[in-house]
Amino acid sequence: MNTNENAVARRVRPFEEGLASLNTALQEMGSLVAQSIHRSVLSLVEKNEDYAHQVLRDESRIDQLEIQIDDLATSVIAREAPVAGDMRFVVTAIKINTDLERMGDLAVNVVERSLSLMHQPEVAGFVNFTEIANLVESMVLGSLDAFVQRDAQKARTILESDDQVDKMRNAISQQMVALMHSDASYIQRALDNIFIARSLERIADHATNVAEDVIFMVQGIDVRHPAARA
Amino acid sequence: MNTNENAVARRVRPFEEGLASLNTALQEMGSLVAQSIHRSVLSLVEKNEDYAHQVLRDESRIDQLEIQIDDLATSVIAREAPVAGDMRFVVTAIKINTDLERMGDLAVNVVERSLSLMHQPEVAGFVNFTEIANLVESMVLGSLDAFVQRDAQKARTILESDDQVDKMRNAISQQMVALMHSDASYIQRALDNIFIARSLERIADHATNVAEDVIFMVQGIDVRHPAARA
Repeated sequence: MNTNENAVARRVRPFEEGLASLNTALQEMGSLVAQSIHRSVLSLVEKNEDYAHQVLRDESRIDQLEIQIDDLATSVIAREAPVAGDMRFVVTAIKINTDLERMGDLAVNVVERSLSLMHQPEVAGFVNFTEIANLVESMVLGSLDAFVQRDAQKARTILESDDQVDKMRNAISQQMVALMHSDASYIQRALDNIFIARSLERIADHATNVAEDVIFMVQGIDVRHPAARA
Repeated sequence: MNTNENAVARRVRPFEEGLASLNTALQEMGSLVAQSIHRSVLSLVEKNEDYAHQVLRDESRIDQLEIQIDDLATSVIAREAPVAGDMRFVVTAIKINTDLERMGDLAVNVVERSLSLMHQPEVAGFVNFTEIANLVESMVLGSLDAFVQRDAQKARTILESDDQVDKMRNAISQQMVALMHSDASYIQRALDNIFIARSLERIADHATNVAEDVIFMVQGIDVRHPAARA
């Protein structure tokens, strides 16, 4: 392509290019956040400090990507004035970006509690985080897939898992409160576990937000707060 | 004004009208959320169930407003394609809207714990929430003022309070953990207080997000994650 053709290509496809950059940055952000969540749980279950430190290191890259995605989205809107479906996609990207960054923060919270637990005596069969963590991770990955594929049906399956996560988290909290009552020496460890369960539940809440935003983006139906629309 | 003049007025000022509706809805949302935070703390400090139920009732109005503000903002962008400063204002409105709705949820969390504490025996001089609550409320109101007045200087003063809130919250948590160790009968009440302090701290985090978004809106400087930009 000669210089003139390049100039023409730049003029006719800036919006597609802007969207492509936005998609790429969001996918990098999504993978990194999903990885951090996975590693935060592994650091806990396997008592592995390396995973924990990796999560702490990746936090600043996630923060950079948040800024970059907001900049990309705002400049796509400002320069290209996208219409209808494309506009919804870019606005959704801005919202999902915030949710992803908060999920990354919550993975850091899990890691901080995981590191605290590593330095306390182990209690065999204490809490099994594998089940809740698997469900939360599948919600995060599923909500991102739904966004990338603009698949409202897939997004709806995410919403169904949210109650399940709440139940698992309540069960862990109750178990931990009972443990504190049985023996005061467990208090710190029980609190750490309560906060880990709470952080995982909040990650699931953010995945639910993402799924709701995807449904709105694809179908134009707002499924947040059904009671508020009745 | 006759029908023709109406038609002309509609044609020439739709963007200003859209912005005005957005401003009005955001101000209603902001007042309602600030009120809910205030009442959640009053219900706790004064052991007042009426305030608590008011907060629970207002939650659905806050949820409605969240949907309405997103709709208004998206349609302003889609129909009017605002440029530069106006575009930043609308995108900021979308972000602040999310923060406000989450603050409302956190006020509900405070109320749930406050209702739980009302049905347990009182512990005199247990925790003093007045100081942290006052600081958090002033951050919320200040960040909203900064947004409405597009005042970056005011927004910067909010950022300075955030560390102070974290310190107050840590002090309360440590006090509560010590209490649990001293007497297992305090465990539930101490947990309720730990979660209340945590919710207030998270409300302050959202106020900080709002302030950061205002600074970005006014000055085009992104003050989130300073380490990520180094």
